[in-house]
Amino acid sequence: MNYKFSDKVLSLKPSAIREILKMTSQPGIISFAAGNPAPDAFPVEHIRAIASDILDRDPIAALQYSVTEGYAPLREAVKARLAKKGVYSERDDVVITSGGQQASELTCKSFLNEGDVLAAEDPSFVGCLNAFRSYNVELRGIPMDDEGIDAALLEEQAKKGIKVLYVIPNFQNPSGRCMSYARRKKVYELACRYDFIILEDDPYGELRFAGEDIPSIKSLDTEGRVVYAGSFSKVVSPGMRVGFVCAAPEIIAKIVVCKQVSDVHTNILAQMICHRILTEYDFEAHIAHLRDIYRRKYNIMAQGIRDNFSPLVKVTEPQGGLFVWATLPEGADMPAFCKAAVERTVAVVPGNAFTAQPTDPTTSFRMNFSTPTDEQLVKGCEILGTLTREFVG
Amino acid sequence: MNYKFSDKVLSLKPSAIREILKMTSQPGIISFAAGNPAPDAFPVEHIRAIASDILDRDPIAALQYSVTEGYAPLREAVKARLAKKGVYSERDDVVITSGGQQASELTCKSFLNEGDVLAAEDPSFVGCLNAFRSYNVELRGIPMDDEGIDAALLEEQAKKGIKVLYVIPNFQNPSGRCMSYARRKKVYELACRYDFIILEDDPYGELRFAGEDIPSIKSLDTEGRVVYAGSFSKVVSPGMRVGFVCAAPEIIAKIVVCKQVSDVHTNILAQMICHRILTEYDFEAHIAHLRDIYRRKYNIMAQGIRDNFSPLVKVTEPQGGLFVWATLPEGADMPAFCKAAVERTVAVVPGNAFTAQPTDPTTSFRMNFSTPTDEQLVKGCEILGTLTREFVG
Repeated sequence: MNYKFSDKVLSLKPSAIREILKMTSQPGIISFAAGNPAPDAFPVEHIRAIASDILDRDPIAALQYSVTEGYAPLREAVKARLAKKGVYSERDDVVITSGGQQASELTCKSFLNEGDVLAAEDPSFVGCLNAFRSYNVELRGIPMDDEGIDAALLEEQAKKGIKVLYVIPNFQNPSGRCMSYARRKKVYELACRYDFIILEDDPYGELRFAGEDIPSIKSLDTEGRVVYAGSFSKVVSPGMRVGFVCAAPEIIAKIVVCKQVSDVHTNILAQMICHRILTEYDFEAHIAHLRDIYRRKYNIMAQGIRDNFSPLVKVTEPQGGLFVWATLPEGADMPAFCKAAVERTVAVVPGNAFTAQPTDPTTSFRMNFSTPTDEQLVKGCEILGTLTREFVG
Repeated sequence: MNYKFSDKVLSLKPSAIREILKMTSQPGIISFAAGNPAPDAFPVEHIRAIASDILDRDPIAALQYSVTEGYAPLREAVKARLAKKGVYSERDDVVITSGGQQASELTCKSFLNEGDVLAAEDPSFVGCLNAFRSYNVELRGIPMDDEGIDAALLEEQAKKGIKVLYVIPNFQNPSGRCMSYARRKKVYELACRYDFIILEDDPYGELRFAGEDIPSIKSLDTEGRVVYAGSFSKVVSPGMRVGFVCAAPEIIAKIVVCKQVSDVHTNILAQMICHRILTEYDFEAHIAHLRDIYRRKYNIMAQGIRDNFSPLVKVTEPQGGLFVWATLPEGADMPAFCKAAVERTVAVVPGNAFTAQPTDPTTSFRMNFSTPTDEQLVKGCEILGTLTREFVG
């Protein structure tokens, strides 16, 4: 049969990363291609105890239909935590989503018609770029410098018309960069001047292992034009699929309607577990523990890069998150590099998986340091380092 | 701030039912308005034991990221069960979704451009109608008779062009009707002749408490044009949000890409629990137990209707599912009836919540018999019965 699929999905492709991950699940492959939390980062004992207690004491509440907005005690706990960070104010509302990805998808659906312009850092998170593509949105990738998205280039695009700007200010995926406070203020100022919405995606903000926290763009927002998306995936468990959006009540109301027709509500047991981890355990101590894990893992990778990589390769030095971004000199053949890396048992993600125009040539690749074991980090950097010296001297 | 939301969501409203449910959560209200499984229908002991075992023995698998297609052992178990019913064949594939609602939403997104025509039984399930509306699809409601959707009217619409037909052949929501085998064959024949896709939504098919099973439309499908959606919500737990789609691999591939950008994958612990309930327990005995519960509850409501309702009210006599559909004589004032019912502490859902054009006048209302207690079923029917006699004699 010759199916007539919608225009929205005709050219939509599975995430290049998830396809690479399928290839690299063979034993013997060192995968720097994933974005999974470290297995020892999960609060397994707490989750086990809480799940057991809920299913003993209140099983029907955990199994019956619930409200689309999310489990009320979890919404309150999220609000309280976000208030401490200056993200939530009394003017805002919160909805629980099925992971951070759904937060971005539903924000896109709520605001953007087909053909409307969404700007994003270039490179950016492929999962969200694909979500935007799935609504036939016009993507504009805007290059970054070390302080984040280029403000002059953003303004140039804004003059032509942007409806939504998607940014990951903390430990950006894939670059690992943080947007500076000055740049955040500038971006917000441009949003007000040129009247666009900012979708601030912050899945990694809790995972800072060096330097000082920078206030969110949402905390600067006096007009109600910033939609802040967060997630429990990197701090509790991604398999549970629990995230949230904090924004003006008018925006949350639209997202709730879109969520109602999508999955009715998020798995309720998972919401109850997140609520109790936030409120009954020492969540700050848990976060500190995660930061220790990722600081250690990052330091192993950074040392491996210093010891092995060609000095001609530029590598970002993230202060948190899960990713390092490496760039070979201009003209380097990235597809050939990634292919050779896999042949030598190391998988990385080629940079064009993250660009608004995937056909744009890039000489960059993304490396993840949270998923591999310590030994794999050492060994993988040796193999990749040798390869960089063969490729670019 | 004056938000410029997308055209898709501008006129989208929260489900009328879910709004009614919020109103009726006050104590003292007898709600016939919900569609929740009976609390004693949940396999609580099994879920408790399985969850505990998984979190003891394999916690990381239950907490880490997983694949979009769904937990492989659950997909296989679903295929095996659907194969027994003639729904799954070797030519098909299966994807696990976050509830049955997501199955319909992603099928809509995969096939329909804005303005494309989707036909559905009129009345039909408001959650899916709203999902279709959220993609700016053109809805055509097609009336039913006792055998299901009117074939002549469907053909009339098909001649003008239908891209997808949405039907709930078993114990339809809200009417409780079953589509006859002859009508299923006729509908499939029309789909082949006029080249449209059939989305066969079957959340209630397992809940037959009288009569004989009727083969699904999917089981008649030789061309790969039927998308079959099922759910664990009514047989295990709706709070878990686990459903599935069975269709041709090309269709499943598109739904998987749409799901990947929506919520990446369905909560994995819930998928593992459904898998083990399907494979390690006597699932047929569990289903038989559910049928006993709903047969008993339906019989209480049916008796209450016979004893109390005006003979001028036409009431469907479902052989399964969760709903009864009552129709007052032409000219009856349904908004006034529902308002009076709530004032006397009984909530029902007015029929226009389920029509393709919610402004169409209806004289029908939906009653649910799975959620109320036995006492509430008796008392609620007495109150409603008195009201029907006051309204229509």
